[in-house]
This record gives sequence, structure tokens and C-alpha cells, in this order.
Amino acid sequence: MPQGVPAPGTVPQDGLTTRQRRNLPVLAVHTGPGKGKSTAAFGMALRAWNQGFDVGVFQFVKSAKWKVGEEAAFRTLGELHESTGVGGAVEWHKMGEGWSWTRKKGSDVDHAEAAAEGWQEIARRIEQESHRFYVLDEFTYPLKWGWVDVAEVVDVLTRRPGNQHVVITGRDAPRELIEAADLVTEMAKVKHPMDAGRKGQRGIEW
Amino acid sequence: MPQGVPAPGTVPQDGLTTRQRRNLPVLAVHTGPGKGKSTAAFGMALRAWNQGFDVGVFQFVKSAKWKVGEEAAFRTLGELHESTGVGGAVEWHKMGEGWSWTRKKGSDVDHAEAAAEGWQEIARRIEQESHRFYVLDEFTYPLKWGWVDVAEVVDVLTRRPGNQHVVITGRDAPRELIEAADLVTEMAKVKHPMDAGRKGQRGIEW
Repeated sequence: MPQGVPAPGTVPQDGLTTRQRRNLPVLAVHTGPGKGKSTAAFGMALRAWNQGFDVGVFQFVKSAKWKVGEEAAFRTLGELHESTGVGGAVEWHKMGEGWSWTRKKGSDVDHAEAAAEGWQEIARRIEQESHRFYVLDEFTYPLKWGWVDVAEVVDVLTRRPGNQHVVITGRDAPRELIEAADLVTEMAKVKHPMDAGRKGQRGIEW
Repeated sequence: MPQGVPAPGTVPQDGLTTRQRRNLPVLAVHTGPGKGKSTAAFGMALRAWNQGFDVGVFQFVKSAKWKVGEEAAFRTLGELHESTGVGGAVEWHKMGEGWSWTRKKGSDVDHAEAAAEGWQEIARRIEQESHRFYVLDEFTYPLKWGWVDVAEVVDVLTRRPGNQHVVITGRDAPRELIEAADLVTEMAKVKHPMDAGRKGQRGIEW
């Protein structure tokens, strides 16, 4: 077989050119019990930022204490973009004590309601193509607990316009989401220092 | 049981205080056939950078074409540190066309020799505590191919002085390395767009 010609069966019969296929939007899911689900998502976001993509991070976590390292680093990158034009814009939103765009703060926050509101805002932004790269961090939990409807999420994501990439992290990703995703990675825990009673480390865990 | 007192068995009998345990150096291995091994390592490096840690990345890859996104982003972060003092210093070295510190370049490079040289330089730096956070990207391959001696690597890593964190990525991590590691995550491939003949994506794959 001549060099450079792909083997039969490796080129999809989708009527797209290579260039078009290079620009297909990606829906990725990082799931499983191991470490690295969010970290790999933020690593992808870093790469997207470097390409000048507008990055939107939405953290569906109760506590705002965790992952402050990534948040601080991405805020720095966002400021760098604003001041010098390098990379892409960055928005970082977290449910924690209430989303930045809502009035409800602190102990008034009902987590189920806040999660639903978070998803509604993301759905609006996807409709409007507000970002080029979305991280929905720990978004599988509101799906799992029924706070956000899986079928609606899959519908919005599969119908999303333009070229918007979405990465969703968290354990126990629902089957419908995995079926809809282009890229699914399961992080398995082989060995973890906390199993041996070790503490979280500055610069490692946060 | 009073609040704040850990359950019996969760505190290791290592004679260390919680503070000491929070400052134990971590050896992490990201292995398995799935995506995200390197990406999660670079995500950890981003967090380390944000804590002001000196980051050293060593890429044991043949081609310099891949992962240019991370490299560009970390070079930007390193420059940001130099100009403003924010974050930590960054050094990024790759075997690709020959390590930056050697004279051999381009097609003269023997990969087995280059890999051995790369490891020798890393061992020297670990001895001298040159960095606080090391990424040895795709370092499992020279180990697997016998270009670098696994026992020597494990010896240098387990004896490393001070508080130096090391993350090693790549498929088929040798058993001895996994045994020596504090944190091992296996990335399993559940679904990958390239299986469906899709192309690598700008801002996603590089």
C-alpha cells in the first residue's frame, strides 16, 4: 500500500474533509475513582488557553477551598490575556458559596437549586457560544443526584452550535453522557498516598 | 468519638507530625493506555507553579511536534515569573532534536543514548535539588526499552533529598516504579475520537 494512504476503514465515511474533521467540537468526560480527572481537564484548558480559546470554568463543588491552585493560576492567565493579549480570556465560576451571577450567597444557598441554576447559565452560554472551551468540573454529581436532568444536558450538548469544546469531570458519569461523549477516560486508582494516612500536600493537592 | 479525632488506623505510626506529613515529597506515576497522563501531570505542574515551586519538565519524546501547547503555556508562565515574580520558575527540556544542554542535535541523536543522558542530568539535578517539581514525561518508554536502568531510577528517586516532587508519565510503567511510587493512577481508554477516524484537534490535542 502506498505511504500516506490510510488503511481502509480508518477514514470515516462522514463526507467531511480532513480540515473539517480537525475542527469538530469535542465532548470529553473524565470519570472513575482515581486522581487526575479535574487536573487533566485543567491541563486541557491550559492548552486551549494557549491557542487563544476563551475558557469558561464552572465548578460544581460545595467547598470553595479546594483547587484554589488551578483557580489562581487561571486567573493569572486571564489577567495576562487582558493585559498583553497572550492566550485566551478566562472566566472561573464556582458554585461554592453561590455563583458569581446570583444574589444568593453563603448559607442561603440550596445546593440542588444552585446546581440547576449553574446548568441553566451554562446552557445559555452554549446557546450564545460565549466560550470556546468549557470545563464543567464535578458536574457528574448533580447529574447523579438528579439535581440536573441528564437527558436535557445530553440534548443541549449534542445540539451545541459552532465549535465549542466541553470537558466534564466527576465519578460515576451517567451512561447517556458517556454515550454522547467523543472522548471518555476512566481514571482508576492504583495507589494513593492518603490510603497510607498521608496528608494533602501544598502544590500537589491544591 | 470526639470530633476532630481521626478514627483508629487512619493515622500512620510513622512518628511524623501532621505538618511533616503535609510536606512529604510525592512520587506520582500516571500510566495506562488512556488519555490524560501527561495532561494531568501538566495540570499538577500548573498547581505547583502557582505555589511558587520551581518546575522542571523533561520530555522523553522523539518528536518535538507534540504537546507544543503545554510547552508554550509553561514558557509564558516562566516568563511571567521572571518579569513579575508571580508563580515559580519553569524550565522545559525535551529530547526531541537533542537536549538543550548537549551539543548533539538533529539526526545525529541516538535515542537510547539521549534518553540515558537525559536521565543522568535529571539524577544530577535531583541530587542538587535544582527543582521542586519534576515532570518526567513519557519516561516509562526508555525504562521499558532498557535504555535507562529501572533499579537505578528507583534508587535515585527513593533517596532524593529535600522536598522534591516527581511525576512520571507513560504506558506500561515498570512494577518496581509502581511499588516505589506514592500515587499511581491508571488512565483507561473508554472511548477515543480517533477510533472513529477523527483527527487531532487544535487546542485539544496540542
